[in-house]
Amino acid sequence: MTDIQALTFDVFGTVVDWRGSIIREGEQVWKVLSIDVDWAQFADDWRAGYQPAMAKVRSGAIPWANIDTLHRQILDDLLARYHITHLTDTQIADLNRVWHRLDPWSDAVDGLNRLRQRHIVATLSNGNVALLVNMAKRAGLPWDCVLSAELARHYKPDPTVYQMAADLMGLSTGQVMMVAAHKSDLFAAQKVGMKTAFVRRPLEYGPDGRPDRETDPSFDYTADSFIQLAEQLGL
Amino acid sequence: MTDIQALTFDVFGTVVDWRGSIIREGEQVWKVLSIDVDWAQFADDWRAGYQPAMAKVRSGAIPWANIDTLHRQILDDLLARYHITHLTDTQIADLNRVWHRLDPWSDAVDGLNRLRQRHIVATLSNGNVALLVNMAKRAGLPWDCVLSAELARHYKPDPTVYQMAADLMGLSTGQVMMVAAHKSDLFAAQKVGMKTAFVRRPLEYGPDGRPDRETDPSFDYTADSFIQLAEQLGL
Repeated sequence: MTDIQALTFDVFGTVVDWRGSIIREGEQVWKVLSIDVDWAQFADDWRAGYQPAMAKVRSGAIPWANIDTLHRQILDDLLARYHITHLTDTQIADLNRVWHRLDPWSDAVDGLNRLRQRHIVATLSNGNVALLVNMAKRAGLPWDCVLSAELARHYKPDPTVYQMAADLMGLSTGQVMMVAAHKSDLFAAQKVGMKTAFVRRPLEYGPDGRPDRETDPSFDYTADSFIQLAEQLGL
Repeated sequence: MTDIQALTFDVFGTVVDWRGSIIREGEQVWKVLSIDVDWAQFADDWRAGYQPAMAKVRSGAIPWANIDTLHRQILDDLLARYHITHLTDTQIADLNRVWHRLDPWSDAVDGLNRLRQRHIVATLSNGNVALLVNMAKRAGLPWDCVLSAELARHYKPDPTVYQMAADLMGLSTGQVMMVAAHKSDLFAAQKVGMKTAFVRRPLEYGPDGRPDRETDPSFDYTADSFIQLAEQLGL
């Protein structure tokens, strides 16, 4: 495993707690603006639109659109469904950017700082570049490089995305390890020859959620935090 | 000028001292391997091949090739011209990667750290992503985002490259300021609506070089270092 040069990270759920962050901002900021919804449910509903929206892009049913755009389309539908009609355009645009303001899991920044002592640490997210850069700046995520499905104009788990990441870093896929809380992401990375690290995030979907819990024997590493992963890598 | 959200930096010559770095590594490392050349001349000759090589890509005479590839083609020609025939393939590949190991000008890291307190700081270089990431990691350049002509598959000063940078950061071109030691780069950035900052690097081409010295009244800022630029921006 000494040949791992770079670690690429899934972001939503693996690095940041999207659900908890949306609930917190919703209850602290948006309730004041009279969006008095169940913010846990609202977050879940928003996220539930994510895979179907990307599937439409993947199938060619709609042309390429980045995640900011897809989040906004889902949000517009949600606001209608929740009968929230009093927000201005500026407020809706700001609410949509809550995805740029997600908080990292408590181990993420320290873990990344340890991991980057010896490895390139990069995002490899379906989130768009602007979202990832704004998130990193706010949260202090020390990426060496921000890579996004947006650069390939294909969404994970399309193999093109993983191959692009290795190519842009000037590495073979075997020199890159994908880190994710989602086994489907890791299986897709394996298919192009990447190493894999499964990091459990049991609370991604809340206390009643159904995250991936069981690792797979084919994964190279399994850890409960980025700090534990760093220790396993001898850092 | 309070609407400047991001600063994009030319890298070769503006952030790093390519000529001094190649001379230093040449004399310290490669002389031992019996490449006993005039390293200042060798660096100048290598760099002289850069614009013609990109011009061939721009004109379509050769298909897209990144800067690592172009640097290697120029190097192969140079080694032949200098009658250097004893290097192994591994050694030539390593020598070519001297461009990944360039040292920043003395003000660059501190200046970028100040500038990034309020702005996104990103590369916008013709250098490829791998080169820029490796350089940043070695030198401690604190980029929020590594953007490269490679992502557009067009070289500066093609307007596509500047527009891509703004688009990927989710900004209008008027919210982005290009920082460069080369006026041609700034004029091209202006054409798509970017703000411009000219930073003088009088020694880029050595003591007898002919760098851009005179600023242009159309530039928004002119400074002699990134620290001075930060001060001008109130940082």
